[in-house]
Amino acid sequence: MHTLHIPTEEHERRREALLKRASEDGYDGVVLFGALNIHYVSGMYHLPTERPTVLGLSDSGTEVVVPRLEQEHAEREAFLHDDVHVYFEYPQGEPMARVAEMCASLGIETGAVAADSDGSPPRNGYTGPALSDTVDAAVGVEEYVTTMREIKSDAEIDLIREASVWANYGHRLLQETLAVGRRPAVVSAEVAAEGTKTMLDTLGDRYEMMDWASPMTCKFTTGETTARPHSVDQTDPIERGDTVVTVVKPHVGGYTTELERTMFVGEPSDEQRTYFDIMTESQEIAIDTIEPGVEYAAVEDAVVSYYEEQGVAEFTQHHIGHNIGMEGHERPFLDVAYDGEVRAGELYTVEPGFYVPGVGGFRHSDTVLVTEDGTESLTYYPREIDRLTVDA
Amino acid sequence: MHTLHIPTEEHERRREALLKRASEDGYDGVVLFGALNIHYVSGMYHLPTERPTVLGLSDSGTEVVVPRLEQEHAEREAFLHDDVHVYFEYPQGEPMARVAEMCASLGIETGAVAADSDGSPPRNGYTGPALSDTVDAAVGVEEYVTTMREIKSDAEIDLIREASVWANYGHRLLQETLAVGRRPAVVSAEVAAEGTKTMLDTLGDRYEMMDWASPMTCKFTTGETTARPHSVDQTDPIERGDTVVTVVKPHVGGYTTELERTMFVGEPSDEQRTYFDIMTESQEIAIDTIEPGVEYAAVEDAVVSYYEEQGVAEFTQHHIGHNIGMEGHERPFLDVAYDGEVRAGELYTVEPGFYVPGVGGFRHSDTVLVTEDGTESLTYYPREIDRLTVDA
Repeated sequence: MHTLHIPTEEHERRREALLKRASEDGYDGVVLFGALNIHYVSGMYHLPTERPTVLGLSDSGTEVVVPRLEQEHAEREAFLHDDVHVYFEYPQGEPMARVAEMCASLGIETGAVAADSDGSPPRNGYTGPALSDTVDAAVGVEEYVTTMREIKSDAEIDLIREASVWANYGHRLLQETLAVGRRPAVVSAEVAAEGTKTMLDTLGDRYEMMDWASPMTCKFTTGETTARPHSVDQTDPIERGDTVVTVVKPHVGGYTTELERTMFVGEPSDEQRTYFDIMTESQEIAIDTIEPGVEYAAVEDAVVSYYEEQGVAEFTQHHIGHNIGMEGHERPFLDVAYDGEVRAGELYTVEPGFYVPGVGGFRHSDTVLVTEDGTESLTYYPREIDRLTVDA
Repeated sequence: MHTLHIPTEEHERRREALLKRASEDGYDGVVLFGALNIHYVSGMYHLPTERPTVLGLSDSGTEVVVPRLEQEHAEREAFLHDDVHVYFEYPQGEPMARVAEMCASLGIETGAVAADSDGSPPRNGYTGPALSDTVDAAVGVEEYVTTMREIKSDAEIDLIREASVWANYGHRLLQETLAVGRRPAVVSAEVAAEGTKTMLDTLGDRYEMMDWASPMTCKFTTGETTARPHSVDQTDPIERGDTVVTVVKPHVGGYTTELERTMFVGEPSDEQRTYFDIMTESQEIAIDTIEPGVEYAAVEDAVVSYYEEQGVAEFTQHHIGHNIGMEGHERPFLDVAYDGEVRAGELYTVEPGFYVPGVGGFRHSDTVLVTEDGTESLTYYPREIDRLTVDA
């Protein structure tokens, strides 16, 4: 059975690479407070709350500090922790004292330690000492794991590819469930429920939930709201003539994908058709520009030149896309100010778009893998206007 | 029409109180990077991403820095911003340069500034300068807003009370939808969809969505998984004899509530009944202990004494509860190590519980308001075993 998560050997390789990188910079070990960073190097996911969960890594091994209610989970064999330091609860239990113990056990309490942040983040009412106040080591805040997460492995790409299959299915459900008079929030929740059922029934024991979120999530806005790309208003009933901008994000093995479509409720107007055509052309331009060695900035430049030619540049509100993986947004960004060149193994949401006041937003988003010689779109769903028009 | 959000005047009062507090400590103004803190003092909610959104406050007024895609939203009259500084996008647009401009405009670029963190958090690939590297002011990291959020106003209590009504409804849906052979993740998603539909149809234009989350969310675990209170595994089909531990969290006006119940699928065993009775008694002991002037620690002490008497103390995994409001967990905590005394206007999840390996978890949670002379439970749902048993 091909399970849908990262193999243990890959977590081992990630830890080796992380330690090697830290060692090159003169660090004796690494301490991670970020939930996704911990997940990335050990496979251990958990619910981040006010209770610190902390992973330490040195040549002596991998150890974690967890609250009592994560103990059995942290001790799972797959996570390969050499030791699990348990405190009962926060604020009782003094989690940072356990972190000091862990650093001593790993032999890094007095050397030099690379950390992803200097202490546990102030979430849910947590307040506590910095790591640098807790150990005698020289603590440097380093973004090693964030950087490692930029290039995806084959196993990561497989998970995102599987998530993309379900993004297509979610869009089919969404397009069939959309109807005049219905509220977007309700349609979205129904798609999440039906999509979750089908995913779990189809994938069976291969699927492991790694957070509280439903395996499939769906959101969309309609009408003039689509001209504000970060509006969260999904309460107004769908009307004939509405533009619709969708997003479906399934979660597989700790990874996600992004598929978005611009749809129309009833026959689109000439104006809607004109803008739609410019948008789809701009997405093709962006995808055609992406290949290893091209500067990140070049992708935005290509789209902006086209938008200027078409007279819609004034309606843009964001760059072209971002890397995606464990988080919905990751770096690098396809942005004129992001230095560097596109590399094989990066994944991008390619989502140029523009937002015309009083008319609506126009944006498709696909998740595109950078290959050795170009790109491969992992997401798929019809992109033509006639196949994205809902009868009304 | 009684809208379901905090009135503008209350945001004004919060800003005055925050500035007064900061001024007492010698600060000329306040800069906030936390999304919920910004929401708390201005009413402006937004989607937190890699793009910094920052609010500044001084005697000169209230200003914000936002990315282009939040501009129209930030300019809404209700949020009372005196000025909105817009950068196009991150990393282009230099958000922290706009923050420096905002501080200059507020007259706090060279004085002393209280901030909730020294820069925007490293989320979604963001990396950028600290506030203290950006302005010449002396920057102190202060938890003023977190502290202000501890005591709830009447308007906040009204919103949480409304959310609690829907938590009851969500539990009724959940109990009716639970059935042997069905997967918890699917039942949860169906409850969220049906609950969201009924909430929006009932509350109509009084309801405003403030994030992407469905107005109602629901989760539960079953069987042996319930003995691990932070397990997120909701994939195994429900079986006859299962213990079920639920949570329904509706969202109203930016606030949430917490209602949890221990249920049984089919007639509970004698062992399940015994543990259930101890749990419900412990919740009554906790609620009876809470009143203004009682030490936070006393609530946990009372429950632990009872658990020791009953021989289940070894099965506990957490303290008794936490404040709740804009976040699902807030401080203070009902914890033996949390200093201070319970105050009227605080709200607590009261959720003593214990977890018996191989048997399951036993926990009800209710959201309880501390009144002048005791408590009032805002959540309600049957708590007796016979009414929490599902036919199977």
